[in-house]
Amino acid sequence: MNINPCDIIRKKRFGGELNEKEIRAFVRGVTDGSFADYQASALLMAICINGMTDRETLALTLAMAKSGDTLDLSDVPGVKADKHSTGGVGDTTSLILVPLVACCGVKMAKMSGRGLGFTGGTLDKLESIPGMSIGIDIDAFKRQVRDVGCAIVGQTAELAPADKVLYALRDVTATVDCLPLVVSSILSKKLAAGCDVVVLDVKAGSGAIMDTPEKSRQLAETMVRIGNLSGKRFSALITDMDQPLGNYIGNALEVEEAIDILAGRAGGDLKEVALTLGAHILRNAGAAESVEAGIDMLQRKIDSGEGLRKFAEMIAAQGGDPRVTEDTGLLPRAKSLVDVTADRDGYVTEMVTSEIGNAAKLLGAGRERKTDELDLSVGIVMKVRLGDRVRKGDALCTMHVGEKSDRVGAYNLLAKAIRLGDAAPEKKPLIQAVVE
Amino acid sequence: MNINPCDIIRKKRFGGELNEKEIRAFVRGVTDGSFADYQASALLMAICINGMTDRETLALTLAMAKSGDTLDLSDVPGVKADKHSTGGVGDTTSLILVPLVACCGVKMAKMSGRGLGFTGGTLDKLESIPGMSIGIDIDAFKRQVRDVGCAIVGQTAELAPADKVLYALRDVTATVDCLPLVVSSILSKKLAAGCDVVVLDVKAGSGAIMDTPEKSRQLAETMVRIGNLSGKRFSALITDMDQPLGNYIGNALEVEEAIDILAGRAGGDLKEVALTLGAHILRNAGAAESVEAGIDMLQRKIDSGEGLRKFAEMIAAQGGDPRVTEDTGLLPRAKSLVDVTADRDGYVTEMVTSEIGNAAKLLGAGRERKTDELDLSVGIVMKVRLGDRVRKGDALCTMHVGEKSDRVGAYNLLAKAIRLGDAAPEKKPLIQAVVE
Repeated sequence: MNINPCDIIRKKRFGGELNEKEIRAFVRGVTDGSFADYQASALLMAICINGMTDRETLALTLAMAKSGDTLDLSDVPGVKADKHSTGGVGDTTSLILVPLVACCGVKMAKMSGRGLGFTGGTLDKLESIPGMSIGIDIDAFKRQVRDVGCAIVGQTAELAPADKVLYALRDVTATVDCLPLVVSSILSKKLAAGCDVVVLDVKAGSGAIMDTPEKSRQLAETMVRIGNLSGKRFSALITDMDQPLGNYIGNALEVEEAIDILAGRAGGDLKEVALTLGAHILRNAGAAESVEAGIDMLQRKIDSGEGLRKFAEMIAAQGGDPRVTEDTGLLPRAKSLVDVTADRDGYVTEMVTSEIGNAAKLLGAGRERKTDELDLSVGIVMKVRLGDRVRKGDALCTMHVGEKSDRVGAYNLLAKAIRLGDAAPEKKPLIQAVVE
Repeated sequence: MNINPCDIIRKKRFGGELNEKEIRAFVRGVTDGSFADYQASALLMAICINGMTDRETLALTLAMAKSGDTLDLSDVPGVKADKHSTGGVGDTTSLILVPLVACCGVKMAKMSGRGLGFTGGTLDKLESIPGMSIGIDIDAFKRQVRDVGCAIVGQTAELAPADKVLYALRDVTATVDCLPLVVSSILSKKLAAGCDVVVLDVKAGSGAIMDTPEKSRQLAETMVRIGNLSGKRFSALITDMDQPLGNYIGNALEVEEAIDILAGRAGGDLKEVALTLGAHILRNAGAAESVEAGIDMLQRKIDSGEGLRKFAEMIAAQGGDPRVTEDTGLLPRAKSLVDVTADRDGYVTEMVTSEIGNAAKLLGAGRERKTDELDLSVGIVMKVRLGDRVRKGDALCTMHVGEKSDRVGAYNLLAKAIRLGDAAPEKKPLIQAVVE
């Protein structure tokens, strides 16, 4: 039974609730092309304005998850876990928590995207490790998850192909920031990837996809609700993005900071969020009694050096040079460093995180278009955090500049984005809420 | 200065008012293709749900009117008038009022479409006259309007091309019945066609484009308001479509009824609406003191035979055989006639006009798709009107059947569409309102 696209569009135009059959027809139609792109975009706009119920969002998520291949991890023994971040600046928690969680006996089977954004995706960061391959096939991926305990690879094109079509349309029709569409886009890929436990990191603040704390909370709550309805175990943290999470922003730079944390040489907000996310996975997988106990377990894997060795093992399994974990000097390095300095005494009162991210993009760390080539060596190292006291002339951050960097543009953005004032700002909690 | 399509779409998505610049950019974009069809359909949907102010609707109408050629009739002396109907069944007022109004000294310069619908458009009806050409060029059109006083020709492709693009999209994205889009679609073509006075016939009832009387009234009021804002003189009648307007439904059949009325042999609702529309044109053009005086003038042109002679003159000027006005037997005739009869005694209580129209389409009088070929000879002749008393076995209507007609399908539709009951229904006014 074919359903006419116009009937589906009309129903949503007038605020009706689409049933499962209609939603499946829509998703099948965008996947096989029988639902034209101009019809899909009309429906997407109607969804943006008139919304979707939980029942519709779940149906959309499941239909998208089943629109292509689904990964069957049932022949890999143990609990398999995945993690997703809505994306921020200096946000490289995956590289830290994946090997640490694996050390605790929970398998991390992570498929990542490249994504457009301030810096490259997890895949781009990993590719800054000499020799590292993120394009291994499904069998090799499953073997590595079973034998090593963790793997991070590129998402295959056949996973949730409907999302690919819809995301490309949303991107050019002003329908990206719409709750049910964001939820179904993220969750469909997670469900298709076949893990049992998923932890979500939803960002709030000036560098977040959702522009208000309420929307970030709604997004987290809806994803956990829909995710759990699908039969998996989901939790979400809402974490602060009013400043870059880590101090290193870039591709090789973020790998370096992850290694520093795994080696026990560095701490701070990035480590705290990574360990808390990892601890939620351990608790949800039944490997830890509580989140606190989970954090302790993960810290011990840092202290013992097991985490860093697991990271080296994962790198080696994917053809990369594991020696980077001992010598970060093997990572690509920018030749030229430029400080951005304070033009007055005062406190760091505000950081416009999105502008700091844009500065990293101007330096060459992120893509504007899918086809843009990255310079994996460039980026920014933050020297201050919100509330820090600085003196005129102090470095606020250091730009790592490459040959193709727009260093003037980046400098100007950074000089405006890091704001100084007379009084220290109120401190916000790093982890603003937990949704389970 | 280019405006990003996404910025325009986003503004309307969140209920903002688009300014002239944004609307012009949109219309220019759909005309030159730089605004992709999936972007246009997203914006159309946002307009459907969030609406448009009068200011936006006027700007959209003007931008669409200027999206291609505009007809300059200033070198044709006198007041030039045009008429538009939102479309109904047995609705052939143009063929009656155009020659009659021309006899009274107001030039009728009418560009018509073929349209999809129950029967063909005015152009299809005219083509049932042997030899008649509706494809004459602009210069010949203007010459004929000047010399004969009237012409009805096909709309050139270059008139309001943006409407063509948008209409095609609306048709497949469930965004047809949206007030500002209907208004701008109709008015843009009228404005581009260059007349000074326009009278609109907005249908209400079971065969009308707008499905409630309120919506028909809103459409009429908005069109007159926006039309007058554009500097032309607009009026609108809201007329009843709870039954076919004329008794003849089809292409040649409707020409025949128009000739019967012009010859003074027939009367009824079709004549009343045609003369009232014509009288509004005369009054708005300054050729009659009042609508009543205008109706008298037009009736005298019937009585004197001038109206029918003017129709013959117009036909001859466009290459057709003027003898049809004296002998309707020259029009194509269906070979086979089939009556639909009353299955009980009673009153005609209801007619589902849209289903009667669909029956005419099944017989071959109308198109489902642009490429469908019409049988100009087929159609339906109604034998009863609402409130008539009938006896079992009386003919309710006669189908004029051709070789390719779906006679069973049409018969079944008609038998259900003409409803009989025990008591005469309340009589509704034919002309429900006048908007000026």
